[in-house]
Amino acid sequence: MKKGNMLIAQSGGPSMVINQSLVGAVLAARDNKEVGKIYGALHGIQGILDETFIDLRKESRKTLEAVANTPSSALGSVRRKPTAEDCQAIFRVLRKLEIRYFFYIGGNDSAETVHIINEEAVKEDYGIGCFHIPKTIDNDLRENDHTPGFGSAARFVACAIKGDDLDNRALGGVKIDVIMGRNAGFLTAAAALARQDDDDGPHLVYLPERPFSIEGFVKDVKASMKKYGRCVIAVSEGISDKDGTPIIAKFTQETDSHGNVQLSGTGALGDLLAKVVKEQAGIKRVRADTFGYLQRSFPGIASATDAMEARLAGVAAVQAAVCEEMSSGSIAVKRKPTKKYGVSFDVVPLRSVAKETRRMPDEFINKAGNHVTQAFIDYARPLVGTLPLCARFAQLKG
Amino acid sequence: MKKGNMLIAQSGGPSMVINQSLVGAVLAARDNKEVGKIYGALHGIQGILDETFIDLRKESRKTLEAVANTPSSALGSVRRKPTAEDCQAIFRVLRKLEIRYFFYIGGNDSAETVHIINEEAVKEDYGIGCFHIPKTIDNDLRENDHTPGFGSAARFVACAIKGDDLDNRALGGVKIDVIMGRNAGFLTAAAALARQDDDDGPHLVYLPERPFSIEGFVKDVKASMKKYGRCVIAVSEGISDKDGTPIIAKFTQETDSHGNVQLSGTGALGDLLAKVVKEQAGIKRVRADTFGYLQRSFPGIASATDAMEARLAGVAAVQAAVCEEMSSGSIAVKRKPTKKYGVSFDVVPLRSVAKETRRMPDEFINKAGNHVTQAFIDYARPLVGTLPLCARFAQLKG
Repeated sequence: MKKGNMLIAQSGGPSMVINQSLVGAVLAARDNKEVGKIYGALHGIQGILDETFIDLRKESRKTLEAVANTPSSALGSVRRKPTAEDCQAIFRVLRKLEIRYFFYIGGNDSAETVHIINEEAVKEDYGIGCFHIPKTIDNDLRENDHTPGFGSAARFVACAIKGDDLDNRALGGVKIDVIMGRNAGFLTAAAALARQDDDDGPHLVYLPERPFSIEGFVKDVKASMKKYGRCVIAVSEGISDKDGTPIIAKFTQETDSHGNVQLSGTGALGDLLAKVVKEQAGIKRVRADTFGYLQRSFPGIASATDAMEARLAGVAAVQAAVCEEMSSGSIAVKRKPTKKYGVSFDVVPLRSVAKETRRMPDEFINKAGNHVTQAFIDYARPLVGTLPLCARFAQLKG
Repeated sequence: MKKGNMLIAQSGGPSMVINQSLVGAVLAARDNKEVGKIYGALHGIQGILDETFIDLRKESRKTLEAVANTPSSALGSVRRKPTAEDCQAIFRVLRKLEIRYFFYIGGNDSAETVHIINEEAVKEDYGIGCFHIPKTIDNDLRENDHTPGFGSAARFVACAIKGDDLDNRALGGVKIDVIMGRNAGFLTAAAALARQDDDDGPHLVYLPERPFSIEGFVKDVKASMKKYGRCVIAVSEGISDKDGTPIIAKFTQETDSHGNVQLSGTGALGDLLAKVVKEQAGIKRVRADTFGYLQRSFPGIASATDAMEARLAGVAAVQAAVCEEMSSGSIAVKRKPTKKYGVSFDVVPLRSVAKETRRMPDEFINKAGNHVTQAFIDYARPLVGTLPLCARFAQLKG
């Protein structure tokens, strides 16, 4: 085995379990005598460019375990796509520090960053193992059955909808909840996990995989009001019209360096849809909430399965890079074809997960395009764990 | 003791523990042989007017306990102020059902409803015990040290801010979180319970008890950015200008029958403040979330202290009405003057809690009017319980 120093960093949107992956990789590396120094770069590649590091051999095991159980990115994060010039600057720093193992935890944009750096390293004949460790609450990485971070965010969404549906039962009317996920509907679909009884919400689920029309939406809401006397709606922040233009894009122009439109951190979409329901469906009590950043950062409610898988994804990356001496790759979570739920971790080429994302498969979306199927529920249930039981009086059940 | 039937209902905004009060009262009544039938009216006084009831002797103890641990109002709720005509109609129903004990769980508007019904009952010489059981996440009932429902909502807010502050540490910029509470700042102030380290957010806390000015706000945000390089802000939905006009009132006209402006279920206030910070403080990354209804309905995270106190408030009402044969009153939560935290439950006149609310006392608000004091932290800490520990790397602590 080649002896060398290691550098690890976190990138993109935080999650409840991204620190599990960090700590999994760090502890695996600390136990391996082929690894020398372990640098943690602050705020992703920005920290490499700025040469701001911490020494991850210096932190106590107790601190590492506590950080693992803490939401958000403990090393700080960044949304920055490296230019060719950035790559040159990054190499200069990596060479100086004698880095042989580079790990980057993040989503598809982060995988793209690792891919760019790896391609440049190959061109320059600079020997470094470049590995991407998957993380995204959007669950939109190709090659993965699901991604670390999704299960916990899905758990938050399912719990939130469960409580909100009971709230709506108490006071009635229409409740619209806007959920994260960009162009993939998985997290919004997780709202359906809240359902215990047939008349439970969400009664409607709108995903970015299907074109959204105001006319169809109003018609659906009216039908739900007629059937249930109320209506709880889960809407993806990324819903788009038939031309693929995000509905929210009519309200915001902000984009990041990867060209993504700002979808989160604003209540505009929910407020627009509430206005539409009030005016076009003639319903008086209409409320909209946008779950926002709590979906990825709420402490104390992570899915135990998700936390464990995130940890193991970090360990798998170190195994591939250090023990198996692979030169590059992305760790992919694969579901075992067994009846009992289980996963394995494969190493796939960086380009197979970088940049492009995946969306919900057709079998997870109902025919009308306004809810999920049982196949989705079966897929997602093991990822979120058992939800708090919510009870109703026997005499009030349908 | 007088033998008679009992009617109980829930009113106003739900909370995570309002069903604890319901179940506390029902189980105490079921154990008391002076109580005959136990009616649960659906959707508050609307259920009395519509004569829609369930028989609360029929539900199993197991179901009752499960409902007690479920957020929202299991009997349904309503926001309706009874007219004199309504009272006549209500009496006709109560007489027919031979109701001798009437319990109504809710906030100041619900106390007002009980007060009106009680006044009418006295006028008509109709012998009925009318009791209000306190509930409000706003914590704005007079006579109470704090109210059932507040501790759990405060716990949600403190957890949410804790995670959100870590999220902001990772990606930087300004984060604005809009929190419920109407004209009282207690719930927004609870954001401060999230702080573990000196540089933790929230860095600014804006309460409805102090006039809000855009100029002062922008100045504060700039100062925080200079000091911390980032800024997490907790803002009450009820912030008002120096003339007492709610800032949100510029965006919505909706009011309920008690004359309250709709403050929740919209992201407008957060979006306005984010726009102001972007434009006037020249900060690029500004995000706003409105915590919305999750604050009162999220399952599985209720404060154990709050849940227990809500249960006991329900029991206390039955004791006052049935065992002590008092004619009317509101249960008030009083803090014991002991060093170790504890409460007692007093019976106070309905008019002393009805309609008017209380606000944060001056000693809980800092001089600059943009944060809380240690006195508030000491007051609120026992109500929310121990929060999930969030850890940071030792090398990154100031």
